[in-house]
Amino acid sequence: MRIVLDAMGSDTNPAPEVEAAVEYARQYGDGLYLVGDEPRLRELLAGRTAGIEIVHAPDVFEMSDHISPGSLRKMQNSMGVGMDLIKEGKADAFVSAGNTGGQMAIALARLGRLRGVKRPALTVFFPVKGGRCAVLDIGANAECKPEYLVQFALLGSVYAEKVLGVKNPRVGLLSNGEEAGKGNELVKATYPLLESSGLNFVGNVEGKELFGGEADVVVTDGFTGNVLMKSAEAVAKLITDRLREEITSSFVTKIGGLLARPAFRSLRKDLDPAEVGAAPMLGVNGLVFVAHGRSDSRALLSALRLARHSVEVSLLNSLAQAIESGLATLPQGEQ
Amino acid sequence: MRIVLDAMGSDTNPAPEVEAAVEYARQYGDGLYLVGDEPRLRELLAGRTAGIEIVHAPDVFEMSDHISPGSLRKMQNSMGVGMDLIKEGKADAFVSAGNTGGQMAIALARLGRLRGVKRPALTVFFPVKGGRCAVLDIGANAECKPEYLVQFALLGSVYAEKVLGVKNPRVGLLSNGEEAGKGNELVKATYPLLESSGLNFVGNVEGKELFGGEADVVVTDGFTGNVLMKSAEAVAKLITDRLREEITSSFVTKIGGLLARPAFRSLRKDLDPAEVGAAPMLGVNGLVFVAHGRSDSRALLSALRLARHSVEVSLLNSLAQAIESGLATLPQGEQ
Repeated sequence: MRIVLDAMGSDTNPAPEVEAAVEYARQYGDGLYLVGDEPRLRELLAGRTAGIEIVHAPDVFEMSDHISPGSLRKMQNSMGVGMDLIKEGKADAFVSAGNTGGQMAIALARLGRLRGVKRPALTVFFPVKGGRCAVLDIGANAECKPEYLVQFALLGSVYAEKVLGVKNPRVGLLSNGEEAGKGNELVKATYPLLESSGLNFVGNVEGKELFGGEADVVVTDGFTGNVLMKSAEAVAKLITDRLREEITSSFVTKIGGLLARPAFRSLRKDLDPAEVGAAPMLGVNGLVFVAHGRSDSRALLSALRLARHSVEVSLLNSLAQAIESGLATLPQGEQ
Repeated sequence: MRIVLDAMGSDTNPAPEVEAAVEYARQYGDGLYLVGDEPRLRELLAGRTAGIEIVHAPDVFEMSDHISPGSLRKMQNSMGVGMDLIKEGKADAFVSAGNTGGQMAIALARLGRLRGVKRPALTVFFPVKGGRCAVLDIGANAECKPEYLVQFALLGSVYAEKVLGVKNPRVGLLSNGEEAGKGNELVKATYPLLESSGLNFVGNVEGKELFGGEADVVVTDGFTGNVLMKSAEAVAKLITDRLREEITSSFVTKIGGLLARPAFRSLRKDLDPAEVGAAPMLGVNGLVFVAHGRSDSRALLSALRLARHSVEVSLLNSLAQAIESGLATLPQGEQ
């Protein structure tokens, strides 16, 4: 197995990428492509190259890059060079903490979609009561049609089943009320399609059911999903910041905080994005994992592990098969 | 000043309403209408009627009630009877923990909209870093048009200015990216309208900016706003539940938790919906405050205080004036 790590992705690249690569190669022994500015990477690796193959990328991705289908196919930045390794069959998965929009555009241009996929969806595991819930789309498609959401439900179900090991995953539709009939136009039109999809549809879900662990997969449009994800992060940060502030405000609460520290650590581990790793672009013809721009080496290592596990369970094949076999039962909207 | 409290609203009505009414009358001395099943209320009040006037409502609101404009205007449940007291000028504000959809429908049928208002919006204060942020719409309008959001911004600005005392409130547009140009079609169409609205528009905001206290008012459609509010509540609950679990998992962390208890209490107070009180339906021709169905007497008392404060600062007049004077500068879509 070969995983590609974009060395130039994170906000503080390439140091976290280099450390994650070294640790990954140490733990698993097998191959890792590290793609980026070769002289710089060689310098940072300082001889620790066992199990790591450096692939040079002459260019750097810039937000201001002229984006056209032609340019996206030619770009020689670390994302483009890295994804080509997947396309050429030299590697099995790609991990990057680089710009999400850039990665999506390059992945669509270089790798394309799995046959029958209308729109790929960015998918994250949310920490919820008793486990994890796969939420998609969290940002690839700000505008969605009902048939996209039905495919997201299928892709997400395969992902939860293969990667989390959940049998017959419960699928929820994010809405502003649990009752059938609640929702905006998109949700109302999607509900009956999910009901007749053959998936394990459990109906509309709100935040209470999502974070209460009452679904394994929750589908929504990329705008709402993105707002949801970023707000959940922000609320968690607000609470933990405020708690820290309150605890350090008096001598007694400070002592209490010190004694209770293992509890806080365990909680932080549970809620830490670094423990979840990365968001795959489900539906792309290749395993592409988007890690947080703020990723440190620990978060990147976690992303590499998620990618590795996804390859081990043949996620891509399963997604392709599900879409192929599910095509007949799904509404045939425009591609 | 007279406030109307719907005695039959909360999940465990009318006991919490009766206790809140007694406490309100004790604290403020002046009049409170308590609307509901008179014999039952009289029994629970057990003579503690100083400052409280009971108004009998012969019917009970049922989710299954046949809803038509005609029936909404006639209903003699506690919401209908209570809102009529506002309409007839006998009272200044209405507070209920009853069904939100029912309240909205009855308010629109009985009280109507302020002149020029396209759609009223449910508005809550979110606890954010350093204070509060007014978010609207959190559920009255699942589908919105750009011109609705511009009015929400105006209504929310008046509310933040009058009730929170914020001068020239900063208005943010909830989006899936901070940069101008990010967003779904609604957000992209709303952005330039807000830029030229004369309001203190600070651009797109994400969860980070919202909960980081970088805006005083955040506007969004009622679907996204509802998902946001319920998810924020659910994340807060997940974290505090998990923390409690972790803290009670060992003797040492339990001691720590006991010592740190004042810190937790202070945090809970900050995040407690009962401290915020209720969500006004801004844009209705009358002050109508929707309290949480799970409200206890403390939450209801807090809602009554918010209603009282809103009357004291002449919120309704200010909203009406702002809409009247702002009409010329707002795009004239269909009503």
